[in-house]
Amino acid sequence: MVNNLDLIKGISTPSPAKIVLLVIDGLGGLPNPKTGKTELETAKTPNLDHLATKGICGLVDPVSPGITPGSTPSHLALFGYDPVSFNIGRGVVEAMGIDFDLEPEDIAARGNFCTVDKTGRVIDRRAGRISTEKCTELCRLFDGLVIQGVKLLVCPVKEHRFITVFRGEGLASEVSDSDPQQVGVAPRAIIALNPQAGMTAAIANQLVAQAKTLLAKHYPANMVLLRGFSQRPRLPTMGEVYKLKPAAIASYPMYQGLAKLVGMQVLETGASIKEEFATLKQNYADYDFFFLHIKGTDSAGEDGDFDRKVRLIEEVDNALPILTSLEPDVIVVTGDHSTPALLKGHSWHPVPILLYSKWCRPDRVGEFSEPACIYGGLGRLPATQVMPLAMANALKLTKFGA
Amino acid sequence: MVNNLDLIKGISTPSPAKIVLLVIDGLGGLPNPKTGKTELETAKTPNLDHLATKGICGLVDPVSPGITPGSTPSHLALFGYDPVSFNIGRGVVEAMGIDFDLEPEDIAARGNFCTVDKTGRVIDRRAGRISTEKCTELCRLFDGLVIQGVKLLVCPVKEHRFITVFRGEGLASEVSDSDPQQVGVAPRAIIALNPQAGMTAAIANQLVAQAKTLLAKHYPANMVLLRGFSQRPRLPTMGEVYKLKPAAIASYPMYQGLAKLVGMQVLETGASIKEEFATLKQNYADYDFFFLHIKGTDSAGEDGDFDRKVRLIEEVDNALPILTSLEPDVIVVTGDHSTPALLKGHSWHPVPILLYSKWCRPDRVGEFSEPACIYGGLGRLPATQVMPLAMANALKLTKFGA
Repeated sequence: MVNNLDLIKGISTPSPAKIVLLVIDGLGGLPNPKTGKTELETAKTPNLDHLATKGICGLVDPVSPGITPGSTPSHLALFGYDPVSFNIGRGVVEAMGIDFDLEPEDIAARGNFCTVDKTGRVIDRRAGRISTEKCTELCRLFDGLVIQGVKLLVCPVKEHRFITVFRGEGLASEVSDSDPQQVGVAPRAIIALNPQAGMTAAIANQLVAQAKTLLAKHYPANMVLLRGFSQRPRLPTMGEVYKLKPAAIASYPMYQGLAKLVGMQVLETGASIKEEFATLKQNYADYDFFFLHIKGTDSAGEDGDFDRKVRLIEEVDNALPILTSLEPDVIVVTGDHSTPALLKGHSWHPVPILLYSKWCRPDRVGEFSEPACIYGGLGRLPATQVMPLAMANALKLTKFGA
Repeated sequence: MVNNLDLIKGISTPSPAKIVLLVIDGLGGLPNPKTGKTELETAKTPNLDHLATKGICGLVDPVSPGITPGSTPSHLALFGYDPVSFNIGRGVVEAMGIDFDLEPEDIAARGNFCTVDKTGRVIDRRAGRISTEKCTELCRLFDGLVIQGVKLLVCPVKEHRFITVFRGEGLASEVSDSDPQQVGVAPRAIIALNPQAGMTAAIANQLVAQAKTLLAKHYPANMVLLRGFSQRPRLPTMGEVYKLKPAAIASYPMYQGLAKLVGMQVLETGASIKEEFATLKQNYADYDFFFLHIKGTDSAGEDGDFDRKVRLIEEVDNALPILTSLEPDVIVVTGDHSTPALLKGHSWHPVPILLYSKWCRPDRVGEFSEPACIYGGLGRLPATQVMPLAMANALKLTKFGA
């Protein structure tokens, strides 16, 4: 059967028109009980509101109603890739983010250095966010180990985060995580989820056992947590599907990794919101699609910091004229998912979206917010349809069928 | 997996209730920059507005958001057939439209007589819309030719349009078009899109080469353009799926062809809007489903004639009492896609829909227009769900599951 990507690939056509997809990570929120207003409603956003007035609004479901997505599926969906068919492990995404050259048979896992108490229970999943330098030092203790003939490659990512790559024969990625995703319990034993993955699970458990010894003197980083065991997937690139020359502006490695996975060029950028917008301006002539990723809003939401999330949204609004003055043919502003400060984590709530182009059919929405977007002309749409809409509004899709 | 047609087939039940599906081709539009109002908003449509008030409204996506459909997929979807699974070539549709008796192995292509300049570049894709008589004369030059043992059957359709049917052994429909869909360039060489189609491509290219000679003295019709090579698909009929006795009222052959493809009886009709409505009235007793197709609105949109599209919508509104006075159990008014005069072509924008029946649950929409329909009780729905809704409102669907 023809899936949506095949359909789009068959009708997409290159053109000079430019598309900017601004992803404000974790944008959607929930009302503050004191004011009845969400983070986005609370923020003063005259530039976004103006764009909402000229454009068309709606609400996006990252996967489908009720499903809280991780960052990988939510971004893949925004790029137009069905996040259920293309379920990519965290390990692979982290490896891509640090430019690790994964071989096709490699198994990659995301690791955290963490703190366990004397009874072995996790008391800090991030080991007090040790420095990247410390993380690099600790990774050297593991890098190059050989267990059952399989070589382990262990590389630092940032702060407490690292990746471990298993390279050898007879491996399979279908194993469970050791990361319990909560404190107060011991890391879980890694188990094989199918018969082929028995050896991989055994090796991973031996690695965890060795970590106990190797890290004994490195408190607070005295244990590891592993998750997202996965193999490199084969995704068609955005160049193939959309005939775009796409670039990514993202300061955090994981989003750079995701962007690379779909064939985007990752641009060098400063980490602040202003610097990211400046990077867009500097590189505007050289690409026809830009994925501009703002991370801080999600982190603020995860920390339960309502006010910081509000301020960061205002900071994005403040920088928006740098983008709009470039006059892209299509501007899309949305989030990859909601991260309400009240929930201190990702959530299933749909995400506000606004799309502006010369050819959008405007609605009566004059404000970029969750409740206003309910009445938008885009209605309620799955995230996988955002790219087809952006492409259509850029007049980059020819007619389907006779 | 059970698809929607199988599901409906399992629960549909015959009854005397009558459904009228009024398709105003290319109905959806974009706001006129001078007034901020679309064609449908500009038109005075008291009868449609009254029906919208009594009924329930919404917006239809012909295929999915962002996808601009051709007439074939957009109509199949309205009839309830997934337009991506059932992607039918233009050649077959045109052949059906002139009642050409296609054999299962035949390959049909849509042809245009066109004008090329001395260098071979297309300067008019329609050869100044030559008369049907002239077209008939020219088709005779080709009809019955045999190339590589394959017989060519060439029949006029209307004005510059014709079909060519390849009949013989070893043919395949997976070949590209020669029609470049633009002027200023030469017709394209026809290429095989899979290994089985090599002979078909070769024959088609020989036909094009012969056309140059045969048409040399027939300026402006001095070349042919071929597109939509295709084989007759096997579609379940609307009789089988819906247990309906369906009739089509459409003045243009292509829509008659589409109607036949899904098993409708095509009724003899005059071409004007009034005459089409009169045909409905005359035949009302004999069928329980009517597809009433208005072509002019789409043509006006394609010509970029905003005002003519407005007038034609008003003409439909004016004729509407002929339909409503018959008191069908279910009335659906929509378009197959949008054709904004501003874009001079089909577009991806969703199409307003209104459904009236005794059993619809009315919303608060009191006006049939794009912005009003955003707030309709039908919400945003894919075109394939229009027929199930119409059937339900006619009480022709029994309960699904125990």
